[in-house]
Amino acid sequence: MSQEVLKKLIIEKVYRNGSVMIEEDEIIAEERIDFYLNGMKLLSVMGIAQDQDAHIVGFLMSEGVIAQVDDIDSLRISDNGLSVYIDATVNDANIQNLFKEKTLTTGCCVGVTGNVEDKIVKDFNRSTVSYGVDMLFDEVERFYGSSALFRQSGCVHKARLVLKHGDAIEAEDVGRHNAIDKVIGKARLARADTQDAFLIVSGRLSMEMVVKCVMHGIPLVISKAAPTRLGIKTAQLHGVTLIGFAREGKMNLYTHASRVETAHTVVKTDLIPSTLKEVCCAAS
Amino acid sequence: MSQEVLKKLIIEKVYRNGSVMIEEDEIIAEERIDFYLNGMKLLSVMGIAQDQDAHIVGFLMSEGVIAQVDDIDSLRISDNGLSVYIDATVNDANIQNLFKEKTLTTGCCVGVTGNVEDKIVKDFNRSTVSYGVDMLFDEVERFYGSSALFRQSGCVHKARLVLKHGDAIEAEDVGRHNAIDKVIGKARLARADTQDAFLIVSGRLSMEMVVKCVMHGIPLVISKAAPTRLGIKTAQLHGVTLIGFAREGKMNLYTHASRVETAHTVVKTDLIPSTLKEVCCAAS
Repeated sequence: MSQEVLKKLIIEKVYRNGSVMIEEDEIIAEERIDFYLNGMKLLSVMGIAQDQDAHIVGFLMSEGVIAQVDDIDSLRISDNGLSVYIDATVNDANIQNLFKEKTLTTGCCVGVTGNVEDKIVKDFNRSTVSYGVDMLFDEVERFYGSSALFRQSGCVHKARLVLKHGDAIEAEDVGRHNAIDKVIGKARLARADTQDAFLIVSGRLSMEMVVKCVMHGIPLVISKAAPTRLGIKTAQLHGVTLIGFAREGKMNLYTHASRVETAHTVVKTDLIPSTLKEVCCAAS
Repeated sequence: MSQEVLKKLIIEKVYRNGSVMIEEDEIIAEERIDFYLNGMKLLSVMGIAQDQDAHIVGFLMSEGVIAQVDDIDSLRISDNGLSVYIDATVNDANIQNLFKEKTLTTGCCVGVTGNVEDKIVKDFNRSTVSYGVDMLFDEVERFYGSSALFRQSGCVHKARLVLKHGDAIEAEDVGRHNAIDKVIGKARLARADTQDAFLIVSGRLSMEMVVKCVMHGIPLVISKAAPTRLGIKTAQLHGVTLIGFAREGKMNLYTHASRVETAHTVVKTDLIPSTLKEVCCAAS
């Protein structure tokens, strides 16, 4: 049986006027999916558990490992949807090419962070720093206003690390992971304190992005884009405040919302707040 | 000296009413940047040649290879901006982890397509298929209208392969490369002809995406997002028609525009059309 691709979650939505709504939201569930070729594990991909069989076929044909569809002897998805098995006549040289040299391509994370999630040794982030919601909205506005490259090319990702006293460090790249690595690298080289800083990024908040916050002790991360389920889970487990969809005068608080100071005018919907924690955990 | 991050290019902009403008455009130039650690090549990243020194520091600290900035002995960028050299005290186990298991994370291309560009054995795509501009605009509209998941999660990438007689195959994933692999895999499993099809994708058209079109003989690819310089170069060299920024009643034609049938009401700007080819080539 295939995994559910969308999971429900109860989150807080904070508005520019300081009001807060508790609402149900849907998030995308990415999974680690293992590809097996001729009985051997080939590699894993992070993706959604949908069309996994077509995925392995398209991937291997794109890479020249399988030349034509007639070379496929069998194709099977495991019951839990997380393993795909293909038996096929293959081009061995092109399999070797898969592993020959490691190039992290644009939009590509560190090729390894996908393996990190069980190995993070950093403690839960217990930082009690807090941020006024007005200041967060202001910084998000500055984030979009301050870069010519960002506007001109319509193509780069950007990261902005806002330090304790309001100074900010920025970096850009075609890769969203690169932009974060660059801004953190700048901060580290400048010996700036990342533990009192917060990060604004332009890209989706998937696990790898949150792991970078965990590794550098950054307590809060904001994006105008969506988080993924593993991004939220990682933030929940490691004490990172994760804010997504920060745009048009609204922010969605997915985890550890107590670091965001709001007017506390919580407008309750028909959801019972006491279920909040259970539902959040159910996303794991 | 660092590479230029933005390159100028003359392109055709096609509007919903069929008119065409020849205009200068700026595109982002991503490069392959080699990271050297303690005298040995560690890996390559595709990114923009800006803040490369901070990039290697942030990357290695995010990965736990370098624990603190004081462990860095030296840091240098090559004159051409494409190599970064760092000497540092490192955690050897975490270097091994970099290469331990290959996981393609969300947004990650095939880890190898970055190496493919010099190795593509496919011939130049000489397909003389052509497409009416109205039909292309209609298909782009359908692309955005047809997926509940796409709208609901705000987080997935999507690919749609439009076959010769208008039938379409779609797939989605959190990774833009995954979505393309899935849609092509579906087409191949259905034994559909990809050589008369065109592809619509939601993500940026970087080199790896165009390589997938090349490998499957797809003559035309459209995105609402931006192309990168290597994406354009790859499309130019391999005969793929590349259309970017297809949104709000406009499309930018970057390469092999003759496959798009327009009303041919070219509104010339002050640019001399005869320079078009030279300027295009100058992007390489």
